[in-house]
Amino acid sequence: MFSSGKLVNLLRLADAAGRFKMLAVDQRASLQAALAKVTGREPEDVTHEEMAKTKQLIIEVLAAPSTATLIDPVYALPRAVKIIPHRVGILVASEESGYDPAGPGGRERKGRLIDGWSVAKTKRAGANAVKLLIHYTPEASSEVRGHQQRLVRTVADECVREDIPFLLEVVTYSVDQATTDTPEFARKRPHHVIEAAREFSSGAYEVDVMKLEFPCDLKYTQEFRHGTFDKKERPAVYDLGEVRAFCRELDAAAGRPWVILSGGVDIQEFIASLELAVEAGASGFLCGRAIWQGVVSTYPHEKRMRDLLTSEGLANFERANAVADRARPWFTHKSIGGWDQVQVQNGHEWYRRYPG
Amino acid sequence: MFSSGKLVNLLRLADAAGRFKMLAVDQRASLQAALAKVTGREPEDVTHEEMAKTKQLIIEVLAAPSTATLIDPVYALPRAVKIIPHRVGILVASEESGYDPAGPGGRERKGRLIDGWSVAKTKRAGANAVKLLIHYTPEASSEVRGHQQRLVRTVADECVREDIPFLLEVVTYSVDQATTDTPEFARKRPHHVIEAAREFSSGAYEVDVMKLEFPCDLKYTQEFRHGTFDKKERPAVYDLGEVRAFCRELDAAAGRPWVILSGGVDIQEFIASLELAVEAGASGFLCGRAIWQGVVSTYPHEKRMRDLLTSEGLANFERANAVADRARPWFTHKSIGGWDQVQVQNGHEWYRRYPG
Repeated sequence: MFSSGKLVNLLRLADAAGRFKMLAVDQRASLQAALAKVTGREPEDVTHEEMAKTKQLIIEVLAAPSTATLIDPVYALPRAVKIIPHRVGILVASEESGYDPAGPGGRERKGRLIDGWSVAKTKRAGANAVKLLIHYTPEASSEVRGHQQRLVRTVADECVREDIPFLLEVVTYSVDQATTDTPEFARKRPHHVIEAAREFSSGAYEVDVMKLEFPCDLKYTQEFRHGTFDKKERPAVYDLGEVRAFCRELDAAAGRPWVILSGGVDIQEFIASLELAVEAGASGFLCGRAIWQGVVSTYPHEKRMRDLLTSEGLANFERANAVADRARPWFTHKSIGGWDQVQVQNGHEWYRRYPG
Repeated sequence: MFSSGKLVNLLRLADAAGRFKMLAVDQRASLQAALAKVTGREPEDVTHEEMAKTKQLIIEVLAAPSTATLIDPVYALPRAVKIIPHRVGILVASEESGYDPAGPGGRERKGRLIDGWSVAKTKRAGANAVKLLIHYTPEASSEVRGHQQRLVRTVADECVREDIPFLLEVVTYSVDQATTDTPEFARKRPHHVIEAAREFSSGAYEVDVMKLEFPCDLKYTQEFRHGTFDKKERPAVYDLGEVRAFCRELDAAAGRPWVILSGGVDIQEFIASLELAVEAGASGFLCGRAIWQGVVSTYPHEKRMRDLLTSEGLANFERANAVADRARPWFTHKSIGGWDQVQVQNGHEWYRRYPG
């Protein structure tokens, strides 16, 4: 049984068949760093206007082929609400960019909400969903895991109160090493992603859609380890048969409709992982940099940026959309059971009982 | 300067060019009376389920060609939110059906909000706009006019608080006679409609879109008086040249983008009035019975109802949409000044100042 606000807005995030083809333009620290690097400056020298303008350009070209566009409230929202086409849904990020170092040795990660923003503001501003990103690893201390779990529950409760869909993004990390580009982490990754999906599928978190990492690092597969995606040789940790099995395990663990994120991999790798995820039961994607990261290299030349978005960016999006056309419609996920099971509270004087 | 929630949701009510092609399915007492009449019963014998089912059928067929669909929270909403296509906006009525007799001799009309429903519930449930209908005549006593004006301000204030568009519908009436189908009222109508539009265009009411009656009764024009629309002969009160002048006067008086309603006239008359309104500057229509009233005659035969909606209903809608394609985009209305003037609050830390 759905509440009206959750259902209306979930429908607005997907296409008519219930598939999510979503664009992420909510990057903050990572985009600031990229714009700084390409112009030979420090991240703090990249201005609010530069960030807002870059996001505006991306949205002007790439919101149109999306079923919904994810923005941040800090830089993107004020311009985005005018230019996101009226038939495209809007998601708004609620977490502060980055994380607070925590736990033994400061190698664990605690999240924080954007100070001065809220779920109530997100709803009031006309968005169709709230997105929360948390860093999570089953290897973190119970204190840090508890903090992250409470953060999810806090946002979930507010989403229920405001009757707006809640999309939870979980990003795993290594407590041992600064980089995740190692055979050790590639080996651990499936367990991390699957355990996180299982944890936040619990009814207590009231998540509507999960945004998950692809459960394996395709660069460490037998088939792709010879530099297929980035020309760098790596050892084999698994083969595609094992990757498919992990994807099926992830689908079994995910108690809610799920989509995959791109996490800054290149478009080839993203398309390969999307195909495997969709085969296993994902309901689409929420993808940012894999589609538009090329634009950073042409910064700050507006015409070249727009040309690149219109050529390479749109082509990338079309490839992703073509794969997502085979995705599982969100309402046929086992947690919902099909379109016939989609019902909202009804009956005589239902509107009196509906909370205001 | 727009607030985010007002802008996002206004955009969702119109087509990409800013034209409103809206369907009304929020009728209550009038639909109950019509279903009773066709089945030889009293209105109070028409059940909740009959009302909900009839509205569901209309929405299943006719929401698709609309840019937004107006529903009532009592019967329509719980089923409508599932079947209104995800790219179509949703408006929800806030007034109780009918009116309370008031003023000297009880011939004036006071409105009331739906008990147990609210603007906050409308926003929470995922709607894109709040609609309020008021009965209004400049001839009513100042006590009754004051009551109606306060009602509008109350809803307007709540719409600002919830950051959701406010669509105000004004219906005129005669304090002298029970029917408005008289030469006397036809003569008065332009003044009534124009004065009401002027009154509620005041900034104090914070109306976003006005839903107005056509300012003349076309059945009393020199050109159409010989029973063009309903085979009934009537005296001439004005000609189409004068009607066009009244439409221009209405457009000048309307300080907000405006659309016309159908008020139960037949489709021929509605199309004729829509053409004249669009010529004068209306931004489209919000039309119910003129498009779908034929369905009542086939009640309760579901297949015949659906067939009629699919044939006659869709054809009527296409005719109306073709006329509305020439309407003035809402954002080019003089009160806004064009697309370039559409801006939301912006700048560094805008999101802290935005109310939650």
